[in-house]
Order: sequence, then C-alpha cells, then structure tokens
Amino acid sequence: MNIAILFGGSSYEHEISIVSAITMKKVLKKSTITYIFVDANREFYLIDSEKINSKLFSSGEYKKSKPLTLKKGGFYAEGMLKNKQIPFDVALNLIHGRDGEDGKIASLLEFFSVPYISPRLEASALSYNKLYTKFLAESLGVKTVPYEHLCKNGERKITMEYPVIVKPVRLGSSIGVSIVRSESELDYALDVAFEFDNDVVIEPFIESVKEYNQAGCLSDAWELSIIEEPHKEEFLDFEKKYMDFSRDAQVLAAEIDETLKEKIRRSFKKIYDPLFKGSIIRCDFFVVDGEVMLNEINPIPGSMANYLFDDFEGMVWRLAKHLPKEQTVKVDYRYIHSIQQAKGKA
Amino acid sequence: MNIAILFGGSSYEHEISIVSAITMKKVLKKSTITYIFVDANREFYLIDSEKINSKLFSSGEYKKSKPLTLKKGGFYAEGMLKNKQIPFDVALNLIHGRDGEDGKIASLLEFFSVPYISPRLEASALSYNKLYTKFLAESLGVKTVPYEHLCKNGERKITMEYPVIVKPVRLGSSIGVSIVRSESELDYALDVAFEFDNDVVIEPFIESVKEYNQAGCLSDAWELSIIEEPHKEEFLDFEKKYMDFSRDAQVLAAEIDETLKEKIRRSFKKIYDPLFKGSIIRCDFFVVDGEVMLNEINPIPGSMANYLFDDFEGMVWRLAKHLPKEQTVKVDYRYIHSIQQAKGKA
Repeated sequence: MNIAILFGGSSYEHEISIVSAITMKKVLKKSTITYIFVDANREFYLIDSEKINSKLFSSGEYKKSKPLTLKKGGFYAEGMLKNKQIPFDVALNLIHGRDGEDGKIASLLEFFSVPYISPRLEASALSYNKLYTKFLAESLGVKTVPYEHLCKNGERKITMEYPVIVKPVRLGSSIGVSIVRSESELDYALDVAFEFDNDVVIEPFIESVKEYNQAGCLSDAWELSIIEEPHKEEFLDFEKKYMDFSRDAQVLAAEIDETLKEKIRRSFKKIYDPLFKGSIIRCDFFVVDGEVMLNEINPIPGSMANYLFDDFEGMVWRLAKHLPKEQTVKVDYRYIHSIQQAKGKA
Repeated sequence: MNIAILFGGSSYEHEISIVSAITMKKVLKKSTITYIFVDANREFYLIDSEKINSKLFSSGEYKKSKPLTLKKGGFYAEGMLKNKQIPFDVALNLIHGRDGEDGKIASLLEFFSVPYISPRLEASALSYNKLYTKFLAESLGVKTVPYEHLCKNGERKITMEYPVIVKPVRLGSSIGVSIVRSESELDYALDVAFEFDNDVVIEPFIESVKEYNQAGCLSDAWELSIIEEPHKEEFLDFEKKYMDFSRDAQVLAAEIDETLKEKIRRSFKKIYDPLFKGSIIRCDFFVVDGEVMLNEINPIPGSMANYLFDDFEGMVWRLAKHLPKEQTVKVDYRYIHSIQQAKGKA
C-alpha cells in the first residue's frame, strides 16, 4: 500500500509533525511512503522519502523539492504541458495542531475527494477545542474533569480551589499550559495562555491522578490498543513532548484490573463511534475513585501512538479499506426546471 | 469593491444557492461581482456576470466557462504558460447547506489565505449541526427549544408529548423535516429524516409559536437588521423556501415592544460574538411566555437576508474591511536546531 503522509502545517506543532512523520518510516516498513510536506506558508511539496531528515526542513532546503497543487482527486505536480497526479492509495493526516487537528486538512481532502485517514471536519472542530470536547463527552454520557471557562476580555475570577491547571482551549502539546498553585499566580498563567488563545479552560490540578491512555480505531471491527499508564513528571512540557513524538518502541500495558480496562474501553468507544470513523485517535482518561473521566482527545496523536499497538501497520491498511463514505448528493436541477416550465421558458 | 460570490456546491441546496447568487446582482448594485461557481462535482468555474441565469446551470452550459484552481492567495485560471489570478477584494460564501455551511469552504479559503465573508470553520461546524448549536447556545446562556436526540441505529422512542417536529441534525432549508401529530406517524417521519442524516433532533411542535428573525454582523460596530416576524404557513417546505431565497424587497419590522426587541438583540450578540465574526448570519428565535429561545442559526441565510437591512451593500463593504485575522504562527525550527546541536550535527 502506498501511504501519503501529510505533515508540517502552519502550526505551533509544525516541528513535532516533522518528527512524527520521520518516525513513520521506521513504523510503516511494508508500505511505500509518499511524503507530502505542508510548509509554514501552506505550500505543498513532494519530499523524497530516501532523503527525508529534519535538517531538510530547518535549512529550508525542502524548497528545492517538487511543488504540488491539491485539486479534484489528489495532488498534482505542475509540468510544462500537463499536470501529473501523485499516486497513492490513502493520505494519512499527520499534521499536529492547527490545520491538521482543527479540521482544515480534513476539509480539503474531503472536498477534493482524496481518501484519507484523519478525524473528519466535525470530529476535528469538536476535539480541537477543549471546551467543545466537554460538551461532546457529556452529551455521549462520558464524564469529564470539572472546569471553568474564561475569555480574554472577560473577568479573571474562578471559584475553584487551588492548585488548578490553566489550558488554552485550542492548542495541543501543552503549549501555553500552566499549573497554578495560588491565586497570586493566576494572572501570569492567564497572560501566558491568552497569548495563544482567546479562551481558556481551568481545571482542578490533581497531584497524583491516575492517567490512562487508550488509542484505537474502528476498521471492519474495533482495533483497540493496550492501555498505557504514562509515566510522567507533573506534566510534559513542549520540549519533553517533542522528544516523545519520535517514539516507536512498544510499551507495557498498565497493570489495572479488567473491570477498569473495560470501563476505559467503553468510554473510548462512546467517544469514537461514529464521529471519529476514519481516524486513529488516542483518548487520555483520568481515573478518580474508580470513575473514568475523559481528560483529552488526541485526534492526531504523536507518531499516531503506534507504540501502543501490536500491529500498527496492519491496522492502517485495514482502516484504509474501511473509510467512511461521504453521502452522495444528486443535483438534478428539478426546482429550476419546474420554475422555468412555470415561466414558459423550458 | 469587487466581490467574488461563491455559489453552488455539492449540496441538497445547490439550486437555492444559484437563486441566492443571482439575487445578489439586484442587491449589490455598486459592487463589481465576480461569480465563482462550484459545480456538483466540486469543480470551480468563472461565470460571466453578464450572462448569469438559472438555465446556464440546469442546462450544463456552465461547463464552457473558464475552469479555476484554488491555490495560495486565490483562484487561478489555467493558462498555457502561466496561471492567471482572478482579481477580487473579498469572497462571499453563498453556498447553502453542505460545503458552504459545514465549514469546508471556510477551511479552503482560510487555508489558502483568501479574504472571505462567511462563518469560520468552528462556527460552521457548530451551527451546521442542530445538536451542537444547542450545546453552544446553552454554554453562552441562550435558551433553546427542548429536544430529544435519536440515532439511526438506536431506539426509536421519545418521551415528549405530540405534536413534535422531527429534524435531521445537519441539513438546512427544511429538508427531511416533518411534523408528527401522533406516535403512529413517528416511524415514517424518522425514515424520511434518516434518509438524510444519521442523527435527528425532535422538538415539541408549538402550533402558533411566535417566531422572530434577527440578522446582522459585527463590522467595526454592531450592524443589526430589523427584526422580522416571518408570516408563514405551518412551516416552509423546500419549494416554498426555494422561492423565498430570491427575496430582495424590504420587509416591515415586527410590531413588538422595545423590551422584547432588546432581549432578541442581546441573544443574537451572545451567539455571534466572537465565534461568528467575519460573517452575516440570521438567528431565528421563538418567544414563549416572554422568553426568547434560539430555534436555529442560519449561518448563510438565503440571499444573505439582504431584505432585512437598510443598507446591505454598505454593510458588506464595511465587513470586508473588518474581517477577523488568523493568528500568526512563527515556525523557526528552534527544537530541531537544538536537537541537531545536541547531536553535534548543527
């Protein structure tokens, strides 16, 4: 199978997307990989998969690669006389953060009828926004961490007890996130968060909360990963997460009882089906007093959370064969015809 | 000002978008109009504004027009040697239903840095879905009509009293909508609705509910329309709405007291700001016992609800000069550089 990996994007996570993309080379060993880079200026380039390395991008040398245009059916290299389509079976959206996770890339691929693995537009818009994620989860009967919502131009008052964690509503990879231990620190943390977003959510910071990650997808059947208990410091800052995005070694499953595992899996499925069909996502859950609460949805997890799966590549292949189909809309000009007839014009 | 009107789309409302677009010629008299048609196959065509009429599309004759490609900065006509950019100041998204209202067109224009009047991606995804509209309104402190949500593969049971109104979650213009007067009629109405969507919302049907429409935008200041009390039969079916989309004659303001008007305007502003910045929308409210409830958001109202404004064209010009700016993201390859340094490669 020929998999086109879309990576880069106009995003704070542009660099970790490059790291994720390079990691895929070690993970998708039986596939042919077609690398399509979206630069910070949102121009598309076809990157030679033999030559890909991080310096190609940081040096700007990628600009010597073939520029591509996205049109009906796929990506095209501009030739002298005729456009040449780049062949691949499926596109894998690996753009973290803006463009990739907010629904823009999904919109582009859907609009131009390119088969793709990624959360679709609606799933993206809801999971990219931490506030909307909470609406979604609650409507599906999945508990979430309690929160308060502040706006950039609104009052800076919370009723929650300290310590709290302050998060910009729309960013991933811990950018702009702070732990606040007392009221006197709140203002500075909000200044930081509002640098990145007009909305923030504030949640209680639970010192040694149990966290479990579940990844998976629905191809022709459910394909759920092992459940990981991430061993981490207070929380991963951007640089640590950055290193984390190049992971490709398997991890050990969390040592928890089957009842809790089943609760986590059930919550994952509720979130995933049907909204996230066509994508491989990771959900991060907190467990407090035996109760499973959704912390975050990672709609495009670092290196696709490949390290949580036994047979990641096989799953990608199966998913590529079971992508959701867009509903067909027949345009037959029935109303215009009938009006023209009424007017005696037909 | 040169305004590019985008219309058509792969949507059940393709035809009414054509009607809306043609109506704009009578409304935007001082502007130069550049017509860009999105056909049912999602190919772009430049339509001669002198020759535009509904038959051009129903006959398929539009295919003789110049095909366009959307790329960085705008739409381009493919020439023999060089691509030629189509000049305009702002694009006006007039694609009703799928593609236009669901966020795809907004994504495309945002991604390729084309200035545009339309709800942005997030606003589109939330308002295109009647269920998410309710989450949004409630989170902003705007009441909505009570509802129940059914899924295609779920149980077909409701607890609400009849009569009820059954609506597919994701379509506009009353497509797939039915009034159900007793339990025996529910199944058929659901069959119809599930033809169009996997989710439906069911609301109480209130026989002679007072309905008021408020349109507007935030340019450099609030520009709110008169409040209209639509005089309608039970509800407008698609054919009636179709005729309705060609409206360009002013209507009279609803005869209601200033207190109620102010409540309606306040609710509109809560919904609009900041999510809908950059767009002209119409909100339809119900008033029951003096309480204002959001019924629906029309993110791209028929003929842009021009008939509700004194100076519609002036408003479009002002809005075009006050579009929301996308946040700038600087990609500086800081992390890749530092890792290369650590590895001794820099």
